[in-house]
Formats: sequence, structure tokens, C-alpha cells
Amino acid sequence: MDKESEWNTALSHVEPNKILIRGYPVEQVMGKLSFAGAVYLLWTGKVPAPPVERLLNAIMIGSMDHGASPPSVVVGRNVASTGAPLNACIAAGILAFNKYHGAAVGDAMAMIYEVEKIAEKNKKSLDLAAKEYIEGLKVRGIRASGLGHRLHSEDPRTKTLFNLAGQCEISGRYIKVIEALRDALAKQLSRPVPINIDGTMAACLCEIGFPPDLGNPFFIICRAAGVAIQSWEEQQREKPMRKIAPSAFGYDGPPQRNLKPET
Amino acid sequence: MDKESEWNTALSHVEPNKILIRGYPVEQVMGKLSFAGAVYLLWTGKVPAPPVERLLNAIMIGSMDHGASPPSVVVGRNVASTGAPLNACIAAGILAFNKYHGAAVGDAMAMIYEVEKIAEKNKKSLDLAAKEYIEGLKVRGIRASGLGHRLHSEDPRTKTLFNLAGQCEISGRYIKVIEALRDALAKQLSRPVPINIDGTMAACLCEIGFPPDLGNPFFIICRAAGVAIQSWEEQQREKPMRKIAPSAFGYDGPPQRNLKPET
Amino acid sequence: MDKESEWNTALSHVEPNKILIRGYPVEQVMGKLSFAGAVYLLWTGKVPAPPVERLLNAIMIGSMDHGASPPSVVVGRNVASTGAPLNACIAAGILAFNKYHGAAVGDAMAMIYEVEKIAEKNKKSLDLAAKEYIEGLKVRGIRASGLGHRLHSEDPRTKTLFNLAGQCEISGRYIKVIEALRDALAKQLSRPVPINIDGTMAACLCEIGFPPDLGNPFFIICRAAGVAIQSWEEQQREKPMRKIAPSAFGYDGPPQRNLKPET
Amino acid sequence: MDKESEWNTALSHVEPNKILIRGYPVEQVMGKLSFAGAVYLLWTGKVPAPPVERLLNAIMIGSMDHGASPPSVVVGRNVASTGAPLNACIAAGILAFNKYHGAAVGDAMAMIYEVEKIAEKNKKSLDLAAKEYIEGLKVRGIRASGLGHRLHSEDPRTKTLFNLAGQCEISGRYIKVIEALRDALAKQLSRPVPINIDGTMAACLCEIGFPPDLGNPFFIICRAAGVAIQSWEEQQREKPMRKIAPSAFGYDGPPQRNLKPET
Repeated sequence: MDKESEWNTALSHVEPNKILIRGYPVEQVMGKLSFAGAVYLLWTGKVPAPPVERLLNAIMIGSMDHGASPPSVVVGRNVASTGAPLNACIAAGILAFNKYHGAAVGDAMAMIYEVEKIAEKNKKSLDLAAKEYIEGLKVRGIRASGLGHRLHSEDPRTKTLFNLAGQCEISGRYIKVIEALRDALAKQLSRPVPINIDGTMAACLCEIGFPPDLGNPFFIICRAAGVAIQSWEEQQREKPMRKIAPSAFGYDGPPQRNLKPET
Repeated sequence: MDKESEWNTALSHVEPNKILIRGYPVEQVMGKLSFAGAVYLLWTGKVPAPPVERLLNAIMIGSMDHGASPPSVVVGRNVASTGAPLNACIAAGILAFNKYHGAAVGDAMAMIYEVEKIAEKNKKSLDLAAKEYIEGLKVRGIRASGLGHRLHSEDPRTKTLFNLAGQCEISGRYIKVIEALRDALAKQLSRPVPINIDGTMAACLCEIGFPPDLGNPFFIICRAAGVAIQSWEEQQREKPMRKIAPSAFGYDGPPQRNLKPET
Repeated sequence: MDKESEWNTALSHVEPNKILIRGYPVEQVMGKLSFAGAVYLLWTGKVPAPPVERLLNAIMIGSMDHGASPPSVVVGRNVASTGAPLNACIAAGILAFNKYHGAAVGDAMAMIYEVEKIAEKNKKSLDLAAKEYIEGLKVRGIRASGLGHRLHSEDPRTKTLFNLAGQCEISGRYIKVIEALRDALAKQLSRPVPINIDGTMAACLCEIGFPPDLGNPFFIICRAAGVAIQSWEEQQREKPMRKIAPSAFGYDGPPQRNLKPET
Repeated sequence: MDKESEWNTALSHVEPNKILIRGYPVEQVMGKLSFAGAVYLLWTGKVPAPPVERLLNAIMIGSMDHGASPPSVVVGRNVASTGAPLNACIAAGILAFNKYHGAAVGDAMAMIYEVEKIAEKNKKSLDLAAKEYIEGLKVRGIRASGLGHRLHSEDPRTKTLFNLAGQCEISGRYIKVIEALRDALAKQLSRPVPINIDGTMAACLCEIGFPPDLGNPFFIICRAAGVAIQSWEEQQREKPMRKIAPSAFGYDGPPQRNLKPET
């Protein structure tokens, strides 16, 4: 059959009563992996080890929602407010992931891979390579991706992700790169600078071998879950066609509570 | 603060160094749940029990990809072929989930809930309620959602999902409804009719208390993972602007192989 | 060639150095018709008479923009604000045309055609058919499309369009229907009710033989011009990622001025 | 009012019973301009002279449709085939306008403006500036936008547009630039190279003072008319969910015929 094919895919294969994901029967994948692990398998062709899978799940959860104010949610809610089906709300929200929103993961991954390569090639320490890179950005007037945050001085997700990354059999080298970049930038600015969630995710995704091109799409498919339910809440709770003030909203869900550890 | 708010959300709350998902700190969610479980929490407000979480993961994996021929993938690949950023490919692909593609889960959920309610209210057996419902559809010239498939006479995902559903502390009542509907339709048509993946997912989602409105969006955010990587493969392997024949393609990935059980 | 074709289109034909629109060489269409007239030709297969073409142009202009506050523009500007290419802004904006925004033209057309058919079939006056129709809507708790407006008690576009419609060799019958519906609704509510722009456009499009299905798309391709330039203005004048308050904006363009008649 | 505004728009202004487009009452615009002219007014702030308006109409008609095979139409038809509302079909089709499809107008405009500026600044002839520019592109391995076509060796639209441009009171300087670029490329390749529709439109839009950023959006809002009706034809003529072969289609509309000149 393949000979006659005009083109091929290596991702998945469907025939009567059989669905293969990268060669594995889908029902075996369903029995063994989590969705996060299965996305990793579908996207990279590799079966993740359990600690990698835990890290992937945590990255995806950390990307899922960031409240009602990001432009992607404002867009989803505005489209929802006109009576749209939810797929249109999700699609429109996804169109709001661009250079200034949701695109920092891929940029930060490219930066991390580049600094590591420079250090490797020129036999420099990561600290020196990072320092020179940050200086180079300043000269060109470019902001580093993945460092600094408008709101969070210590993003609660960063520690969790770096802890989980430490449990994988990985080099830790890319996490060292982002930390070196953070230190270099903090020194340049003479003030503390946090690694933000994009920089955190980027370092973790580098550690587990994601291509930088797929950093932003990975974020996007996670955040789609948030855009979807925010759009649905709009249709459930609000009148159609209201003027949606993107700042003047509050939270009336459950007060802060603890998620009991699994027993 | 809330008093002055023009509107409220009950989904999540963000303040400096704190992100709550339905009241739970996101880092606790990251440490305890899988992404599938976290989506369930974000969407329904409930923490899933472990077997429910396993079922959710399996449903999401079963929805993730179905080869390169569905219209959503054809659309994603065509948009990719023009040099689009991946978010545009994903968004366009998602716009292809409508009445005839990817929308059967919600319809099947509504049908299952309705048949169950009729049986309950009129103190009928599920079998009788299902038989009368199928007869009613015939009179009105409507096809039942979630039953029958063009390709799969026995979808490999159905058995896995019903097994996992059996491990949850659930009634099993909604699974009985879809089985009763299948039997009634098979009798009407005098030939075997499979429960397809949509009907399977629908029954499972009814069992764990999903609103029918969210059945299709749940499928969509899963399938977005497939549309994304199919679009990326297009850009990696093919020349821009090719005429993409939606049938004449083959599979050149790894041959069928087994996913070893976790050790 | 056609015999071997799997499918056919009757809209246009392209071969080397030749492009036909509904059979007419595109360069002839370019020399003779306006864009509005050419869209009518492409969509309906008919060459519009000059007064019909003038009416079409006026309808399209009347649909082009309605300030910065409609959801389609809020969506376009929010997507623009994230650094998106303009095609993504336009696409997202178009996804905001649904039941409650921009969809009244098609509904009003269907209503007008239906009332006319009822009158014709039952040999009733348009006034009586309209009265009974409006009463029927009230019983079913449905609002009539195309009548009443939140802002405009006398939309400046209505008079212009009905004047232009009067210059076409048309029956005027559909305009009489919307006027009869307006009068019946005003009587029911005991207060004046304006025919809004949707009702106006709907009556005019009925007069010139548009299918009701194409009423909303016709509005959409016109309004796309407004969404596009509003999104571009956002990128030209504003900082990325600002919170766009959908009401708190002013106008700082040229003060009101007159467009001198052609000399 | 403006003082309290958080932001301003200079495009249009809406208040009860009044709509201003760049300061002009919309009903005056409707009475005087064609839709093409009104888009020019809305987008640039200038009232077009009648020959400019004729040129704009012809450009828009030339952009409206190019048969059923471009990716934007394949996408629109595939989305339509799943039962989508037409706004989703149009939006998805618009997402297919990128680097390799529909984006050449803006690139060609930027190129034409650049070559003209180089000639002006360095007091070179347009021919010399064009020759050096084409040589520079070759060195950098870049294809010139707006020159050459896979199908049309002499695009029927080019002559019509350049004729109409000749009737406007314009410099003709930008048309000379694209002709000089064509000649330089033809000499370099030792074979004739046509100015394609993108190069033609680009030169005309430069002549009438369009910003290059708006070249592609202008094309997009015109082509939206084609995508819309092609998607609608799909839903009218074809079964849902068919495999749409993007090459194997024929034309069964009216045979070639002449559009009689206005009498």
C-alpha cells in the first residue's frame, strides 16, 4: 500500500479494529500511560519513563489556566458571549497565543539550547556563556525569554517542576543554563529576577528532549482546557453580549483549601 | 474586592505568588493529580478518585488521534502547508469539529441521560425505555449517536474503557443504557451494531458526572494534540503548498509493537 | 475532463491565462462591475442591474464598521494585542458573529420570506399576516429579528437603503413585509419600534433575490473590513497586552464633516 | 468625554442615530462611494478620486476568487463538510493565508517601496536600482515576490489593472519599479517572467498610497467572498464528510460568455 501512497505519516495508523500510536496499539497506551505521557509518545515517538511522565503531567497542569484575565480568555469569553459553539471559542482563544502571550516557552527553549551549545562548543562554563549571552541581548536591546514576571516574584509552580525534574534521570544541564541566565540577568539589573513559568517549562522540556518548535504548541493544548471552561462559564453565568471588563472581576469559588495527599 | 467586581469567576484565582484551581493551590494539584484529573477538577470542581482519574486518562488518550484522514487533520495540514504558525493550524482544525465530526459525544451523552430519565420517571426497564427511544428515532428519521462505525466493527478502545469504568465506584447504569440502546438498534436493523468510541466515551462521561455540554469540548482539547503534531509533521516532511490528497497516504512509522507493562 | 472529475464547481474556472467568474472572463467583470456587483455575480450567478449594484454597495458600506465596541472588534483587538498576524485577528473576529451578534440578517430574511409566503398562500393581506406572525412570536416567547435597537431609534442607514431600493425595478413587497411587521410590533408594544439595520438589509436582500443562508455571510465579509482595520489600529497605536476596556474609549479622529457630492 | 477615555480610536464614531466613518456620516458615504472606495476611506482616511475608486474595485474583483483548488478554499470546504456554520468556514479559510499563500502582496509592496527609496536616495535610475536589488536577492537566495506564476504566463488581470492605474492621476513610478524588477529578473534568468497578480496589485496599491502592512489584509477581505461561497457550494451540492480531492474536480457552470458593456 505504501508504495502507491502519495505521502506518508509516521505518527499513527488506523485500519479496521486497529489504531496504532507510533506503532503501539492504542488500547495498550490507554492501559499504561497517562494522557500527558501519551502526548509525549505521539509527539516525540518515545515512551516516557515514569518520572518523566510525572514531570509532563505537572507541566501540563501548570499551563492549564491562569485566571480570567489573559487575552486568550478575554477572547474566548467575548466569542462565547455572542452565542458561539464552544469549538469557535476555543479556536479564537488559541489565535491569541502569539509573540506577547504564550509564546515564551519556545523562545526560552531555543535560548537555553543555544547557550548550552555555545558553552559546549567553546569549552566555556555555563556561567560564562550565560553572562556573555545576556550581555549580547542587552546590546541588541532584546529581553530574555523566561525570566522575570509582572505578578509572581516566586512562581509557586517553579519549585514543584524543578523538584520533579530532579527525580528524572536527566542531566540537569539545561536547568543549570536557565539558572545561570537568571543569575547573569540579576547581576546586570542589580535586583533579583525570578525564573518564570515559561523559563521553568522551557528548561524542563529541554531536559526531556522536546524540540523547541513544540514548546508553544504544548503550552497551547494545555491552556485550551482553561479557555474552554472559562468560555463555558461565561455562557452559563452571564447574559449574552455584555461588555466584558478584563480587569474588574472577582473570584467567588471555594476559598483556599488543601488537596489531601493520596492515601 | 468582590463587591466592587462587575463579574465573578468560580474557576480559578490568581494573585502574587498564588494560583488556585477551584480553591486548591496549583502546586498541590501538580503534585497529586495527572493532567486528566486536573482538567476534571477545573471543569467540574470535583477531585477525581484514582480509578476515575485512570478512566479519564484513558478516555483522553482514546480521543487524541485517529490518523491523518479526518477533516480536522486535513484542515490542519492544509493550513500548515501555507506556512502558518502552529496555533493557526490547531485553531483551524478545531473549527472542523461540528455536527458530522467530533460532535457525537455530546449528543450521545444527552441521549443516554434522556433514556435513563425516561426509565426512572416512568418506572420502566432500561431495555424497554431504550427500545421505545430507538423506535421513536426511526419514526422521526434520526440516527442514534454513538452507535455504529464506518470502519471499526469492534473498536479496540471500547473494551478498555468499559473495563476501567468497572473499576470506578459508579453505578454502571449509563453503560447499561448505551448497551440497551445498542441491542435495541441491532434488533431493529437485524444485524450487529457496535457501540462506537463516541458512545463509549459518552457512557463513561455520564457515569462520572460530566455535563453533556462539555462532552464535545473534552474530545476537542484531546484531539488538539493530534491536530497539532499532524500539522507539524506536514511542515517537517512536506513541501509547502502541495495538493494534499486526503486518502492517498500511507504509514511509514514503526511497525506494530507492544508497550511493555510497567515493571 | 469533467467526466473524470470526482466533483464539480459551478462558481469559477481557472486555466492558464484565463479566469472565469460564473462564465464571464474576470477582466470583463473588472471593467464593468464594482466589487459589490461582482460579489453578487459570484454568489448568485446573476449580473446586477446598475440600481441593484448601487443598493448592494450601500448595504456593504452600511455593514462595514460600527465602532470599536462590538465583540468582533474587541476580539480582533485582543488578538492583535498579543502580536498576532492580521489574518488571525480577522479570523478570530469573524468567530464572534453568532446568534447574538451579526446573525440577525439571515434570521430576518427567513422571517420576511415566510410572512410573504403565508400571505400569498392564504390570500391574506401583508398587514394581517404580519400581525398574526408577531402574535405567534409573542406566544412562543421569541423576539422578532430586525426590529428595535438598543442605540438607534432611527438608524441613519435605513432611509438611504430604502431610497436606493426604490430605484431598483423591484416589487417592494418584502420592504412592505418588514414595515408591516414593524407596525404590528409597535401596536403590540404600544410604542414606536424602528426597523434596525439588520431588518433593513434583510428586506433589501430579499428584494434582490439573495438566499437567506447568505445574508449573514454577506454581512460578515463586509464587517471583516472593519475588524481588520480596528485590529491594525490597535497594533499601531497601543502597547501590546494592554487590558482593553470595551466601553471606556473615545474618538479622536476628524470632527464631523460632509462628503461633497461628486462633481 | 475623550479626557476620561482610557484609549481612543480615530476610525469611526457611533452615537444614537449617528455613525461617522473617518468623520463622514455613513449615509453620505453610502450615497457617494462604492464599497471599495469606502474601505479605502475607512482604512486610509482619504476619499478616493473616481479613477482611484475604479482601480480599487478592479483590484478587489481580481482578488475575489481563483477557483476551488487554493488551500484557503480546500480548508473552507473541509470545514463546511463537517456541518460548520459559514463563519467558521470563512475564519478557517482565512487562517490559510500565510507566507506561501496570499501573502505576496504585502511583500511585493515592501520591495517596491524599498527599490524606489534606494533609487531616490542614491540618485540612481529605477532600472539600475532594480538590477542591483535582483542581484542582491540572488546572492541571499531569496525569490522576488510578485514576479512569475506557476500557471499564468500572462495574467488577464494585469493589463486591466495597469490600464485603470493609468487613468488615475498618479506618478506611475511604482509601476515602473515592478516593470524594472521584472526586466532585471528576466535578464538574470534569460527567459520571460510575468508580473503576477500579487506584483500587479502591489504596484497599484503603492501608487495609491496604501501602507504595505495592509496589502495582505486587503487581499484577505476580498478573497473571503470566494471562500464563503465555495464553502456554501460544498454544503449545497455535496454530502457531509466526503474526502475532498483538491485536484480532481471539474467545472460545470455556464460556458464562457461575454459581459456586455454597460449601455
